[in-house]
Amino acid sequence: MTSTALRDHAVQAREASLVLARLPGARRTEGILAIADALLASSDEILFANAIDVAAARTRGTPAAQVDRLLLDRTRIAAMASAVREIAAQDDPIGVAVEHRIRPNGLRVSRVRMPLGVVCVIYEARPNVTSDAAALALRSGNAILLKGGTEARHSNLALGEVIGRALGAAGLPTAAVQVLAPSSREELTELLRLDDLIDLVIPRGGEGLIRFVAEHSRIPVIKHFKGVCHVFVDATADLDMALSIVANAKVSRPSVCNAAETLLVHRDIAPAFMPRMAEQLTTQGVTLHACAETLALLGGRPGVVAATDEDWATEYLSLDLAVRIVDDLDAALRHIERYGSDHTEAIITRDLVAADRFKAEARSSCVMVNASTRFNDGGELGLGAEIGISTSRLHAYGPMGAHELTTLRFIVEGQGHIR
Amino acid sequence: MTSTALRDHAVQAREASLVLARLPGARRTEGILAIADALLASSDEILFANAIDVAAARTRGTPAAQVDRLLLDRTRIAAMASAVREIAAQDDPIGVAVEHRIRPNGLRVSRVRMPLGVVCVIYEARPNVTSDAAALALRSGNAILLKGGTEARHSNLALGEVIGRALGAAGLPTAAVQVLAPSSREELTELLRLDDLIDLVIPRGGEGLIRFVAEHSRIPVIKHFKGVCHVFVDATADLDMALSIVANAKVSRPSVCNAAETLLVHRDIAPAFMPRMAEQLTTQGVTLHACAETLALLGGRPGVVAATDEDWATEYLSLDLAVRIVDDLDAALRHIERYGSDHTEAIITRDLVAADRFKAEARSSCVMVNASTRFNDGGELGLGAEIGISTSRLHAYGPMGAHELTTLRFIVEGQGHIR
Repeated sequence: MTSTALRDHAVQAREASLVLARLPGARRTEGILAIADALLASSDEILFANAIDVAAARTRGTPAAQVDRLLLDRTRIAAMASAVREIAAQDDPIGVAVEHRIRPNGLRVSRVRMPLGVVCVIYEARPNVTSDAAALALRSGNAILLKGGTEARHSNLALGEVIGRALGAAGLPTAAVQVLAPSSREELTELLRLDDLIDLVIPRGGEGLIRFVAEHSRIPVIKHFKGVCHVFVDATADLDMALSIVANAKVSRPSVCNAAETLLVHRDIAPAFMPRMAEQLTTQGVTLHACAETLALLGGRPGVVAATDEDWATEYLSLDLAVRIVDDLDAALRHIERYGSDHTEAIITRDLVAADRFKAEARSSCVMVNASTRFNDGGELGLGAEIGISTSRLHAYGPMGAHELTTLRFIVEGQGHIR
Repeated sequence: MTSTALRDHAVQAREASLVLARLPGARRTEGILAIADALLASSDEILFANAIDVAAARTRGTPAAQVDRLLLDRTRIAAMASAVREIAAQDDPIGVAVEHRIRPNGLRVSRVRMPLGVVCVIYEARPNVTSDAAALALRSGNAILLKGGTEARHSNLALGEVIGRALGAAGLPTAAVQVLAPSSREELTELLRLDDLIDLVIPRGGEGLIRFVAEHSRIPVIKHFKGVCHVFVDATADLDMALSIVANAKVSRPSVCNAAETLLVHRDIAPAFMPRMAEQLTTQGVTLHACAETLALLGGRPGVVAATDEDWATEYLSLDLAVRIVDDLDAALRHIERYGSDHTEAIITRDLVAADRFKAEARSSCVMVNASTRFNDGGELGLGAEIGISTSRLHAYGPMGAHELTTLRFIVEGQGHIR
């Protein structure tokens, strides 16, 4: 795409965003529902395009797990439509006053929610991001530019076609959701320079893509580089619960950012917990990267290797788990402060004081008590879906839903007030 | 200052921020009140330092208005202490849950307010920024680095001494508020590279300083470049009210960013309004930069000159006002969209529909109905004080108080939940 063509897309998005911002929420809801209907009605068209991407991925020898992320079928399209419907059912955030105060001089001050304007999502692999992001953008009154990866090229362009037609039929500006063709890094850099037209960029994917976007963007970027998520098993933990949560956090889907990467175990409970944990996890195919003390407890069990300092900072995204014995809650918090990525930390405990301290002092974007790290997900936390996850504290911290694509401004009403 | 010394200051601030974040709000309140007391108790010390800055400014031939911004006296120090006390009286935002939901699976999800960490304010002239910013930082649990301008060097360093002693006596970490000596642009650039230690930079001052910070910072920056604020006098405006608000918005303090720079007048009311407005404002010393139609209405009156296209985008910061006749509300909104700076816009009207449309469609950070633009100020809007004003929609939009120095994170509580 030429840089003029890119700019034209962004200009059209900006214009569409002005139209969207003025529409009542009900009209945007109709647009979101129209997308859900169209996904189902146009399944054949979407599956045909997806088959091209999947065949090409297999020809390239893409690993099965990655092909699976790319693959659509009728069940998955139905799930996409259902996620879109859930977003349609959310209260519309735009125009809602969230604070109101009357000043001593009688001036009425409120803070009212408005859209950001134009949002750009740059992503890899999973085509469901396309429909989730389109629905969240409409819910929050923003126009959106969607730039997926080459591997999902045909799938995303087909989804863009289907969504565009649905918006047109619902009487909404079709430029509100635009799927841009995948492009070279040079073209991506051009896009990232359009800070007069685009308000926010959200990169989703591997650390390489995210670092590239963060370094080259003149537009504000919200991102997370990686998820080095910890589970801390406290001295008072229910052992069965701890085992169940650790296994779920590591094994249920090791390739995602909310999977656990490091297990911290309180010294007092380690002799009772470690052998059972090792038994179950190694049976499930997990390699444990263990500290010296853990090694001493577990002897020469297969599937257990010695951890190096590097393990503590590693996001494996695989069936590997770093395991360390810590003296107490303080030591666990210090470990997380030093090696964590501000993504997700969980404590398993029956001790109220420990739970309170962990909630207050683990400063990550999502802190779990007696629950799996895997729940750090927009859908699971009640946001409907997520457009991204932020691990920096500006604007949003944690998974971002429709609300996180809005801002609050001041509306002030007087009766001739002067100062 | 060497870059190692700068880094040391930032490291100490980071450590202080961790201590602050864990203190109960009442302890931080005590610290803020200690600052207010110390400002009054140490007035002599502060005034002595300020006299050095003021004498130097006069020697350099600094214009009187700028010397006035720098000048402290007992009344102004009392006002600084009073603003600090107002911030001490605010509810503490830290640790408060602002949302709570129970998911269908019983998982309890809340969003809890936490500090950003370390904030750096880079500012010119007014020494009251030092005490306001220190109080807002403590209220929001953040450590703060304060880098004032050379012209206020002695005043700010004295304030830093006084504040540091107050914090120490109150048992809070003195590194939580650090006044850094003014420095060269090279040293400032060093500071702006400490993105591993500082979470947010807020530049306040002239457009040159702000652009320099925005261009050289690796740390997220929240800023506003300028305030091209509009007053739109609608066809149904009460003429006396309109006159009073326009005069207040322009004349009461022309050098500040919330002063009006452009007056838009509905065609239908222009013949009645313009001559009275011109009479009053030119008498008050204002030069009107008038569109051709306004010129035709006002004849060859002294103090009225022809506007050029450049006038519409100019932040005069002086007794100058651009004046334009517009066809209707739509034309006013288009003018603001094209030339505005997303700072403050006011409509004077008795028409409910026009007021509603102006509130919805003027997309600036602060929109006023029948009130002067001068009310866009943290203190006036009920934030206690402001640490800066944002005219971009990420993180904060409009004046920023203690809440805008915080973020929300997710706390999730289960009973052994797995996914």
